[in-house]
Amino acid sequence: MTMTLFYAANSCSLASHLALAHSGATYSARKVDFTKSEQRTPEYLAVNPKGRVPALVTERGIITENPAILAYVAQRFPAAKLLPVDDVYLFAQAQSFNSYLASTVHVAHAHRYRGARWSDDPAAHESMRRKVPETMTACFQQIESDYFQGPFVLGDQYSACDMYVFTISQWLEGDEVDVNQFAKVSALRKWMFANPVVQQVLQSQ
Amino acid sequence: MTMTLFYAANSCSLASHLALAHSGATYSARKVDFTKSEQRTPEYLAVNPKGRVPALVTERGIITENPAILAYVAQRFPAAKLLPVDDVYLFAQAQSFNSYLASTVHVAHAHRYRGARWSDDPAAHESMRRKVPETMTACFQQIESDYFQGPFVLGDQYSACDMYVFTISQWLEGDEVDVNQFAKVSALRKWMFANPVVQQVLQSQ
Repeated sequence: MTMTLFYAANSCSLASHLALAHSGATYSARKVDFTKSEQRTPEYLAVNPKGRVPALVTERGIITENPAILAYVAQRFPAAKLLPVDDVYLFAQAQSFNSYLASTVHVAHAHRYRGARWSDDPAAHESMRRKVPETMTACFQQIESDYFQGPFVLGDQYSACDMYVFTISQWLEGDEVDVNQFAKVSALRKWMFANPVVQQVLQSQ
Repeated sequence: MTMTLFYAANSCSLASHLALAHSGATYSARKVDFTKSEQRTPEYLAVNPKGRVPALVTERGIITENPAILAYVAQRFPAAKLLPVDDVYLFAQAQSFNSYLASTVHVAHAHRYRGARWSDDPAAHESMRRKVPETMTACFQQIESDYFQGPFVLGDQYSACDMYVFTISQWLEGDEVDVNQFAKVSALRKWMFANPVVQQVLQSQ
């Protein structure tokens, strides 16, 4: 049995997709069509009861949540050097970065389209949408100044942290934030867009 | 040099604090007083530029974000069996649980007191507050039905996942959610309140 990644277009699952593509693993990718609410079907809820992507089906069971999948792929395919899995401290720093993306940066963005998760009032949704350019700018300023070593997030080694921040940076234009103000993130994007594995994954979405 | 944990009362840093206390590590704990906005002082921002807790000062540098700290403490002190660090798949499942707590459950709760992060409108903050009992109930129902094996989160082994869900369950009463409706979480809380290491940490807060 090969692994199967459930993903959705323009979603955070791109991070796990990129990590798998770089890992050397044999896997297949199955699209969940959010425009048809396929994530709410009984079939998909049997895969991921949370009704979200990504979900990675392995021979032992199903793993959800980007930070967990990224660490899993990195630990299972260490030759790909997706994360510094042999150094407990450096691994923690990489995990800290990924956790910040999941619990703060992705969440800031989600207030643009997913306000109904946290309020039933349409006026509140609108006020959340208005603040997203400010919160996403603050998040990426913090990433640039405090957490992105350069040329890659962890320094000289391209890693799953780059794949994850690249994924979220794809949303900045829609969030009315100019990515060009973030020098390190912009340079990383340029480098990744020229990478054939990244290109292949983007075209398959 | 021993490690130092920066924590705040009634905050999510309790999860990392409990893990350290159970790990056998030598560490000290320093309180950050949120009632005096100490997390915004230059001194604390030099420790954690995000102005949040927990932050763990190690001999090599500072680690932030609960899921990263929990994995770090578990990997560095494997004899304490805080997470299944020797099995890549089981470790991923534990990390998935912790990531869900950080990026979905803690975030749902945060809409009670921290609405200003995501909206500038006081009416929107109020509407977010009103929805917290519903979202926190849904999160804990999902934990009970899909992710908590029993008697502990990961089955027979008490782990950092229990310490993290215990921490967040402490907020349920304030969120107007009756914890007694969640049988497995309630039984875990009872067991943990009777644990002397847990008691010692709670009394030190």
